[in-house]
Amino acid sequence: MAKLYFYYAAMNAGKSTTLLQAAHNYEERGMNVLLYTPVIDDRDGSGKICSRLGLTRPAIAFDSNFDLFTDVAGRLKESPIGCMFVDEAQFMSSRQVLQVSLVADRLGVPVLCYGLRTDFKGEPFEGSKYLLAWADELGEIKTICHSGKKATMNARLDEEGNRVWEGEQISIGHHYVALSRKEFRLDKVSPVGYHIDEQS
Amino acid sequence: MAKLYFYYAAMNAGKSTTLLQAAHNYEERGMNVLLYTPVIDDRDGSGKICSRLGLTRPAIAFDSNFDLFTDVAGRLKESPIGCMFVDEAQFMSSRQVLQVSLVADRLGVPVLCYGLRTDFKGEPFEGSKYLLAWADELGEIKTICHSGKKATMNARLDEEGNRVWEGEQISIGHHYVALSRKEFRLDKVSPVGYHIDEQS
Amino acid sequence: MAKLYFYYAAMNAGKSTTLLQAAHNYEERGMNVLLYTPVIDDRDGSGKICSRLGLTRPAIAFDSNFDLFTDVAGRLKESPIGCMFVDEAQFMSSRQVLQVSLVADRLGVPVLCYGLRTDFKGEPFEGSKYLLAWADELGEIKTICHSGKKATMNARLDEEGNRVWEGEQISIGHHYVALSRKEFRLDKVSPVGYHIDEQS
Amino acid sequence: MAKLYFYYAAMNAGKSTTLLQAAHNYEERGMNVLLYTPVIDDRDGSGKICSRLGLTRPAIAFDSNFDLFTDVAGRLKESPIGCMFVDEAQFMSSRQVLQVSLVADRLGVPVLCYGLRTDFKGEPFEGSKYLLAWADELGEIKTICHSGKKATMNARLDEEGNRVWEGEQISIGHHYVALSRKEFRLDKVSPVGYHIDEQS
Repeated sequence: MAKLYFYYAAMNAGKSTTLLQAAHNYEERGMNVLLYTPVIDDRDGSGKICSRLGLTRPAIAFDSNFDLFTDVAGRLKESPIGCMFVDEAQFMSSRQVLQVSLVADRLGVPVLCYGLRTDFKGEPFEGSKYLLAWADELGEIKTICHSGKKATMNARLDEEGNRVWEGEQISIGHHYVALSRKEFRLDKVSPVGYHIDEQS
Repeated sequence: MAKLYFYYAAMNAGKSTTLLQAAHNYEERGMNVLLYTPVIDDRDGSGKICSRLGLTRPAIAFDSNFDLFTDVAGRLKESPIGCMFVDEAQFMSSRQVLQVSLVADRLGVPVLCYGLRTDFKGEPFEGSKYLLAWADELGEIKTICHSGKKATMNARLDEEGNRVWEGEQISIGHHYVALSRKEFRLDKVSPVGYHIDEQS
Repeated sequence: MAKLYFYYAAMNAGKSTTLLQAAHNYEERGMNVLLYTPVIDDRDGSGKICSRLGLTRPAIAFDSNFDLFTDVAGRLKESPIGCMFVDEAQFMSSRQVLQVSLVADRLGVPVLCYGLRTDFKGEPFEGSKYLLAWADELGEIKTICHSGKKATMNARLDEEGNRVWEGEQISIGHHYVALSRKEFRLDKVSPVGYHIDEQS
Repeated sequence: MAKLYFYYAAMNAGKSTTLLQAAHNYEERGMNVLLYTPVIDDRDGSGKICSRLGLTRPAIAFDSNFDLFTDVAGRLKESPIGCMFVDEAQFMSSRQVLQVSLVADRLGVPVLCYGLRTDFKGEPFEGSKYLLAWADELGEIKTICHSGKKATMNARLDEEGNRVWEGEQISIGHHYVALSRKEFRLDKVSPVGYHIDEQS
């Protein structure tokens, strides 16, 4: 039985490094892998997965209309596939998460997705919302906050390094920093709208 | 540093048993615990946590307007609190999940929430959506499908035991059965709307 | 593919409760289970699994010469078996851990073992040593130290509640308390023999 | 509270890559790290940590008499330390595992150890035996067997790629391949000495 995995992490935890290492493991055992990355992430050019440790390799770029199930099903007719990998998986649509669920359930190909849980306001990304709901296995790639605590949230910074509290969900131009939820101040930034006195 | 935990499971995995055991552990070491349960879950009467193994104990019932942060902060002035427990946590509002995040971050009280991930159509519950996004630690309480695979989804059944494909998100009167995602047929039931041919 | 699981915990974390809940889940789906417990644990009479929450049920008692593989293989000829459970699994011999590995690998029956990792001096039990080495999945059932930290070690106490630093590995008559490794003072009690100054 | 982590994996799962990524994360947040590697592992020259993805960096080489606690305590007087890393941690002695436990408990420095669980006969390495027993957190870095199942065991091969069933625990010259426990045939290779008929 093939499974759908979601490995989540805050910014700069090493998700792409982990993905590239896992893909390498499959290939070393003689199995083919498929690598996908959403076009929205054009930090390093569409169609590449880049690790901050300096590793990079090409990937199939997909936009929001791309049908991941049909694509894998088609390639599977050509040759066996050991594993499907999706980088920046938070940018998948709910339909695309359903499609990769079916890649595991109907095509029998394991799917490993890597991505963030939440945006700079603490809201779940659409892809993450459904991956967290449907994945067979959830795994965390841990990283740390400057406070020494585990970092789980992603804060947006402007060019001077000041915290940005408002704006669009996706903005590739900004800088981001991984923070613990306590440092992130969820009650100050979340659109959910619940605040407590600073004194509390 | 106090943490927010979300222990998720499919129906009938033993969430309430696990909660009652963990509360017992705290009390055995001489620490006070607070137990909460949403009023929506009136299977066993409001304000009780009932395990299918026959264990039961009273809990503070809360509705959707209840402020969990203020309630814990008030009780904390009376006596120290070792841990806060929330059963059926999928029924929390996003605000209430933010409130329990602040119980951990600002009041320093660990919070253990137990609940389902998704409803009978595969949609995340509001409480689960935010607990999966914000919890410091995600843990699974595993159970099995009649197929022998791990059960992660919750199917609704009518009185004759037939699958129900349509209806409201919350319906206490129905029966539910835990299924693996493959048996659940996400593409048949999900409002996300992506279907594949049976032949695939 | 059937797996071997080892769920480890410190004393009084609720291992037997968790085991009984998991067995109940299998039976609720119409599957047979087999429950085993070593005779060395005569706290509650041989051949019973007792949870501190008050639940109890009979189990097959086995001594150090008992062949768990042959026993399961024999029963499997009578009727299908959904799952094998072993309580107090730290008391298994290395051979018995090999036998339950083969129950998973050759008989295709999943095996869930529950037990302590280490004794009152911090030494691994024989069963735990091999379960930690060979299990497909390791899971922790968490509990807490009186200090509020996670408890992972098991200290022996005499009748007055004083710490016992010397003695045999197995002594059912004593009391035990779960402590964090820091409170346990591994360098004071371990036969490994490495000590640091109290001032450090 | 600083913790001791043991990330275990079979051969060639990417342990060193994961270690180097985690060290990079600490440094990126401005924290110092200490990297250690046992001299027994001279595949790539003593005092280096080498990832199969091509990354490499220097590390403090230690032999079986090296006191890891005293070394870290001394360096801590010079400058703060964010994290201690140990590669090939299966080769630590029980004393050295006790020493790194004290680095976490007494010096307050988190310790991340990476290593194998078992040797080519399925016996736990000394370092792994104690790390599995004492670590606050156990994590698995997953990899796969040629059979498609998860690989958890390490088989030794000769130059022609044939399985080696006998020999010394440590032999750097041989090749190794990660296998699932079922493919590994624990009952054929383990010195524990329990065998079943091939027909079973």
